[in-house]
Amino acid sequence: MRLSALLSWPVQAVGIFPPLRVSFTLTAKDPGCAARAGRLVLPHGTVETPIFMPVGTQGSVKTLHPAELEELGAQIILGNTYHLWLRPGHELIRELGGLHGFTKWQRPFLTDSGGFQVWSLAKLRKITEEGVRFQNHLDGSKMLLTPELSMEIQAALGSDIAMLFDECPPYPCDEAYAAKSLALTTRWARRCKDWVVTHEPRSGPGRQLHFGIVQGSVYASLREQSARELVDLGFDGYAIGGVSVGEPEEEMFRAIENSVPFLPAEKPRYAMGLGTPPQILEMIARGVDMFDCVMPTRLARHGVAFTLDGPLHIKNLIHARDPRPLCESAHPHVADFPRAYLRHLFRAGEILALRLLSFHNLHFLLRLVAGAREAITAGNYPEFKDSFIRRYTQSAIP
Amino acid sequence: MRLSALLSWPVQAVGIFPPLRVSFTLTAKDPGCAARAGRLVLPHGTVETPIFMPVGTQGSVKTLHPAELEELGAQIILGNTYHLWLRPGHELIRELGGLHGFTKWQRPFLTDSGGFQVWSLAKLRKITEEGVRFQNHLDGSKMLLTPELSMEIQAALGSDIAMLFDECPPYPCDEAYAAKSLALTTRWARRCKDWVVTHEPRSGPGRQLHFGIVQGSVYASLREQSARELVDLGFDGYAIGGVSVGEPEEEMFRAIENSVPFLPAEKPRYAMGLGTPPQILEMIARGVDMFDCVMPTRLARHGVAFTLDGPLHIKNLIHARDPRPLCESAHPHVADFPRAYLRHLFRAGEILALRLLSFHNLHFLLRLVAGAREAITAGNYPEFKDSFIRRYTQSAIP
Repeated sequence: MRLSALLSWPVQAVGIFPPLRVSFTLTAKDPGCAARAGRLVLPHGTVETPIFMPVGTQGSVKTLHPAELEELGAQIILGNTYHLWLRPGHELIRELGGLHGFTKWQRPFLTDSGGFQVWSLAKLRKITEEGVRFQNHLDGSKMLLTPELSMEIQAALGSDIAMLFDECPPYPCDEAYAAKSLALTTRWARRCKDWVVTHEPRSGPGRQLHFGIVQGSVYASLREQSARELVDLGFDGYAIGGVSVGEPEEEMFRAIENSVPFLPAEKPRYAMGLGTPPQILEMIARGVDMFDCVMPTRLARHGVAFTLDGPLHIKNLIHARDPRPLCESAHPHVADFPRAYLRHLFRAGEILALRLLSFHNLHFLLRLVAGAREAITAGNYPEFKDSFIRRYTQSAIP
Repeated sequence: MRLSALLSWPVQAVGIFPPLRVSFTLTAKDPGCAARAGRLVLPHGTVETPIFMPVGTQGSVKTLHPAELEELGAQIILGNTYHLWLRPGHELIRELGGLHGFTKWQRPFLTDSGGFQVWSLAKLRKITEEGVRFQNHLDGSKMLLTPELSMEIQAALGSDIAMLFDECPPYPCDEAYAAKSLALTTRWARRCKDWVVTHEPRSGPGRQLHFGIVQGSVYASLREQSARELVDLGFDGYAIGGVSVGEPEEEMFRAIENSVPFLPAEKPRYAMGLGTPPQILEMIARGVDMFDCVMPTRLARHGVAFTLDGPLHIKNLIHARDPRPLCESAHPHVADFPRAYLRHLFRAGEILALRLLSFHNLHFLLRLVAGAREAITAGNYPEFKDSFIRRYTQSAIP
């Protein structure tokens, strides 16, 4: 089934002066699964979904130049509110023209809410109705992050998409805690919404979009409740949070399956912090449109490269005299170099090694989601997915 | 005085099958000083002199991609025989097609002899007539580097220009030691020459060139003696060694002034391991054609950028909110970014910071020598030099 123009639901702009029409349009839906292709128009450019978003934690996708991200076909990158708030500070970034003026990445930015980093990096966290008090990981200063402040920081950063401030419960997590946490996340979502309605944050020439985050841990009824409450409040898109926090893969899939049915088809869906190449394809089959993960660049810095035959560990001795390129699918920027040279660069501690593998892994994932988009448009996504995963997981290369 | 075509002395090719004619042609000489411009044709391309050679110690100019070096207009880069011999080993590099096949840098390479690194990095050195015994700095293995082995390694690396194996005396150094050391350097030069004549090492489509190294510490008569002995043996070019080893700047200039008059005008002259932007201009005025130094990339990694107003320390607080580019002369690859962002990248430990400043500093030096070539050709080199140095040293920017 091809839905094309029939499935074009513009996202209504909040506020009085929306000079740029923000919209999400579904362009194709696979007949054999829930996978879909779409087009998300944002203030700084259009994003074709499904899309992978490289992570630029501190305002830089590690090791890469913005011109390289352009070359890779990156359409949107992620910035971390927590990190940028602490250093260099959101007021300084606002002064320099927001993230776009500061970093010179001219396409869309998504910023997270800071909640996940407070949870994973900061010390002595104390969650209250007001927000989260904690000591930051840089100098131990006592700080307080609230829903309103998270929205204010993201408004200063001027990202195209801002995420609501949520509480991300750990795994495992008992149902009573998960329920209590979810209720808090909904109350915080309401406060975020109030702030946004009052302040009408902008992103360059348009208005900033806001995505709610579905929580509820591994409990189906809580996922449903969270999704319904957020949809009632009404946001530009919805993320599934509380995944990739240490749970088994099947629980991760289940969290998505328990959330997606309660999210509106006409809004973008974003699975936060995922995943391996096969996991991303599985999520797309379950109707997810957007992904982000530090894994491609982090693995790269540890010498692991994605290939069609699975992950390749470039430091292994077997590559020492190998004249072949990293992978048959490699970009010319990387494909020129023999594996033997890449291994040497790693052993010698040369930064070029980190650059080349980071570039390669992002190229691999961006090509993968481009392939997924093509397969969905062609109506054969399940075959595409299965054939990729079979080859990726079958071989055992060092 | 413009010399143009009149001053074209081709360097005679050694060996039986030199399919590519290697030559050094002087194209201009400044009327007001000893500065000269020339064209050095090497197996992997032509080098316009005066030239600065970025250093790719371990087969990579730190942080940079070969395509960026092309973009910078780098014409020749340097590889370190000692480092590449130890890791990954010259036989492996030979197998992969020499340095050009291994690193994919397709323009000329110059390799040093390894002598300087044995002197500066290795432990428990013992110099004998045969060569230098030492324990390497990686795993403490006992090794022996001889003139013949240095030539053999450089032949395996396939560099366009190989340096003779010399002894580099320390500073300060008494005259008796300097004389003894110089005599050994000359005997080693003869052994290098014998090896080259026997083995006829090649570099890609042509023959490898060999440069002798003038020693003699701070002693004018020893510098003259060393130069004369090497010229008698006959090489493709001559370097001035034993400079930039801790001596005061005036001693460095004197070492050049005491060597150059005894070197043939029709052969390229190379001052090893120099220098600051003003030092390079001073050396060009004294008739030197080629330079290399790790300083531009090493300073960059410590947050120091060359600017027309002198070195700029990007980590300083004064740059924290500065929206201006690094330097009015910056390349577009770097000029886009506000100083505030570059400072943030450094504080946040982001690799992009190291890349951008490394790129910038090499761009600065390569533009500087290009400017020198233009000034020599225009016949106004002393004005060019004085005007650059005046501005560079006058200001005091943080």
